[in-house]
Amino acid sequence: MRLEQQLSFIIEIDKLKHIFRKTRLVRSDRFENDAEHTWHLAMMAVVLYEHANEPDLDLLTVLKMLLIHDLVEIDAGDTFAYDEKGLEGKFEREQAAAQRLFGMLPDDQKDEFIGLWMQFEARETKEAKFAAAVDRLQPMLFNYENEGQSWKEHGISSDRVLERNKHIAQGSTELWRYAEELIGKAVKQGYFN
Amino acid sequence: MRLEQQLSFIIEIDKLKHIFRKTRLVRSDRFENDAEHTWHLAMMAVVLYEHANEPDLDLLTVLKMLLIHDLVEIDAGDTFAYDEKGLEGKFEREQAAAQRLFGMLPDDQKDEFIGLWMQFEARETKEAKFAAAVDRLQPMLFNYENEGQSWKEHGISSDRVLERNKHIAQGSTELWRYAEELIGKAVKQGYFN
Repeated sequence: MRLEQQLSFIIEIDKLKHIFRKTRLVRSDRFENDAEHTWHLAMMAVVLYEHANEPDLDLLTVLKMLLIHDLVEIDAGDTFAYDEKGLEGKFEREQAAAQRLFGMLPDDQKDEFIGLWMQFEARETKEAKFAAAVDRLQPMLFNYENEGQSWKEHGISSDRVLERNKHIAQGSTELWRYAEELIGKAVKQGYFN
Repeated sequence: MRLEQQLSFIIEIDKLKHIFRKTRLVRSDRFENDAEHTWHLAMMAVVLYEHANEPDLDLLTVLKMLLIHDLVEIDAGDTFAYDEKGLEGKFEREQAAAQRLFGMLPDDQKDEFIGLWMQFEARETKEAKFAAAVDRLQPMLFNYENEGQSWKEHGISSDRVLERNKHIAQGSTELWRYAEELIGKAVKQGYFN
């Protein structure tokens, strides 16, 4: 019974592969989906956690948080980071999604996963701050590689990018310094409209 | 310098999203790519590791192994599990890929990742046995949900599926018992040619 609940959840979350983001793959026309995005973030966490402000963080917790953090978008959809209107009511929609999806699991795992998701959203623990930092850094790297693709397509200014992503510094001042330099180079190269 | 090496690797591995497998997504015509497949395996490990034969395994090691295990396919391509000819020389091709890809990282991380990849391939530690078990179970679950899609498309018999995947039992006798039952049901429902 427990195993069947778990496997039903495993099948259900396949839907994450159909949720598309506003960012395209590196030097590609194809939009990135949430599942492959999530894998990439997990890789970034493994490779980059030495740069966290508090590198004694629990990497397993960071990975679990990242692996599940976008699952709520199966029901609530992807909200573009610069869509002010879409961000209204987002947390409520996502909370309902968390209850439905994680509610498919045995109670102890439901509680664990909802706890991890809330921890990620609250961005208070060192693990959540670092997880959020890689989640914000990844699209910036992609946009730079793609000469500003989603910034241009949606008319986002460099100031808005810096304002929206500055909390990267809470997880890693080193990664934020790199990101600021990247935006400076992007401005010079005309990657913003 | 260290950070730049790491970020070059992070950009390079985006290519995993362009490597397609022979399995389609659940109830979908789209083939699964290696990056989203890898995310799904990591989720399975987190949800199912209580069923491992040795549940005191190091989950962080399992996750790291799974996250990187298919990266070599960026250079070596995906080899269908039932393609006997394609399996010839596969390990040599993949070793060269591991050297190139992990060689983009600082030496300590190169060594760690090659070590993890070799550990996964050797399937001797409890972590590797369990990681391999979820890697083999996932396409069986998908094929069942898709009424035998890739088994039928490639003329794979139920005996071959059982033979090819029986090492799931080394990681989890419970998951293997479930898989055997699933194949039994698939035979009854005509999911094999």
